[in-house]
Amino acid sequence: MKKLSVIKVGGGILEDLSSLEIFLNNFSNIDGLKILVHGGGREATHIATLLNIETVMHEGRRVTDAETLKVVTMVYGGKVNKNLVAQLYKRNLKAVGLTGADFNCIISEKRPLTNGIDYGYVGDIKKVDSDILDRILEMGVIPVIAPITMDNKGNLLNTNADTIASCIAIEMSNLYEVDLIYCFEKKGVLRDSDDENSVIPLINSTIFSELKEDNVIGDGMIPKINNALESIKHGVNSVIIRHFSNLEDANSGTRIIN
Amino acid sequence: MKKLSVIKVGGGILEDLSSLEIFLNNFSNIDGLKILVHGGGREATHIATLLNIETVMHEGRRVTDAETLKVVTMVYGGKVNKNLVAQLYKRNLKAVGLTGADFNCIISEKRPLTNGIDYGYVGDIKKVDSDILDRILEMGVIPVIAPITMDNKGNLLNTNADTIASCIAIEMSNLYEVDLIYCFEKKGVLRDSDDENSVIPLINSTIFSELKEDNVIGDGMIPKINNALESIKHGVNSVIIRHFSNLEDANSGTRIIN
Repeated sequence: MKKLSVIKVGGGILEDLSSLEIFLNNFSNIDGLKILVHGGGREATHIATLLNIETVMHEGRRVTDAETLKVVTMVYGGKVNKNLVAQLYKRNLKAVGLTGADFNCIISEKRPLTNGIDYGYVGDIKKVDSDILDRILEMGVIPVIAPITMDNKGNLLNTNADTIASCIAIEMSNLYEVDLIYCFEKKGVLRDSDDENSVIPLINSTIFSELKEDNVIGDGMIPKINNALESIKHGVNSVIIRHFSNLEDANSGTRIIN
Repeated sequence: MKKLSVIKVGGGILEDLSSLEIFLNNFSNIDGLKILVHGGGREATHIATLLNIETVMHEGRRVTDAETLKVVTMVYGGKVNKNLVAQLYKRNLKAVGLTGADFNCIISEKRPLTNGIDYGYVGDIKKVDSDILDRILEMGVIPVIAPITMDNKGNLLNTNADTIASCIAIEMSNLYEVDLIYCFEKKGVLRDSDDENSVIPLINSTIFSELKEDNVIGDGMIPKINNALESIKHGVNSVIIRHFSNLEDANSGTRIIN
């Protein structure tokens, strides 16, 4: 089976020029077929503030009213996405920037009230079109995916980028041996958030439960690990959480296993 | 030879909900393969103003500094483009929103000083990749093109949407019989801008020169007609300038001939 790397990169890295350079140079060096999924939350918050639109977060997730949806569509689908495509071109890589609306490649459903919270225009993914992503890859082009999807009525929805990466990795596993890498500013999942050398090398569901019970893992990391566990359970070959400067070092980061 | 319609729609129509509905219903009814090219200038000016970025225009063209480039990338490539894709889905049409950076489909060159004017990050088109547009059309998908291109060094550039439509129409004429329609809020090129019934039915280069000499045609219309004449000279089957509610009425609008 052919190999495919699905890389998720967070907003913090995209908004710092030197981090972005390091990440993109690393990303370019990955051999073989690859898909890039990006965030952009910090920039969205920045632009929203300039536009006098209040940012409301709940458990690390953005509550997305109609005005906020316009902002994230602009920032994720326009600014961040197209700049990544252009930056990849500078590294001799041909890419196409997509939201889930494009080619209708990721169809989602507006999230219902969750524990009494209305997240607004936020999507939960129902279907990834692996066929179109495969056709793009076969053309030698890298899909660069912004965290915006569309429901089956044609409404754009703000969608968590970690979850998009996981759903793409799972769906593409029918066609490829998929390695999913979540990369961010830390060396991996840390036992002590102040100690970069406290990386937990291996997490499975049992260890994850223990870590949660002991309050070792912060709120922000829990959904990411949930996504990682989902991926590995549903056929993804490997899932790893590691530093953005170290995408290919097999000994770095936190490996998620079943 | 198979037929292809290339439709350019201006920003004014996109920003008025009822006009947009009328346009999209009309667009959906066009038989056969089609490509949509859009503007978005009014919305870009609106967002720039909210972000305290000054808008500078010269002869109807936006002078694009680094901050303005960020705005047009967000607004054209994100907000306007993705909303059009979603709106087409509501009409059972599958579309993909692209800038020239995506698939590297439109490569341009930063405009040099023009009569002493530095337009900033503005692109003049060098190459349209008709092969990728053809492959997308063959998939039954409508390319929706935002007026952002990329130079061969990977820099995004603001690019006139009328010119993009013309260059796409010309390049696609190698593969298709192409009908190019520029649609906007008027019934066509008017002899008297206050009289909607003064549509000039036919313009060729001789008539165009006379109209310019007699100051019948306003500044804004001149580059559009120049683009139209270029298109017809370079193999496009038909070029017409008409009202957005009337895309298919053969007797409406201004036809541009050689």
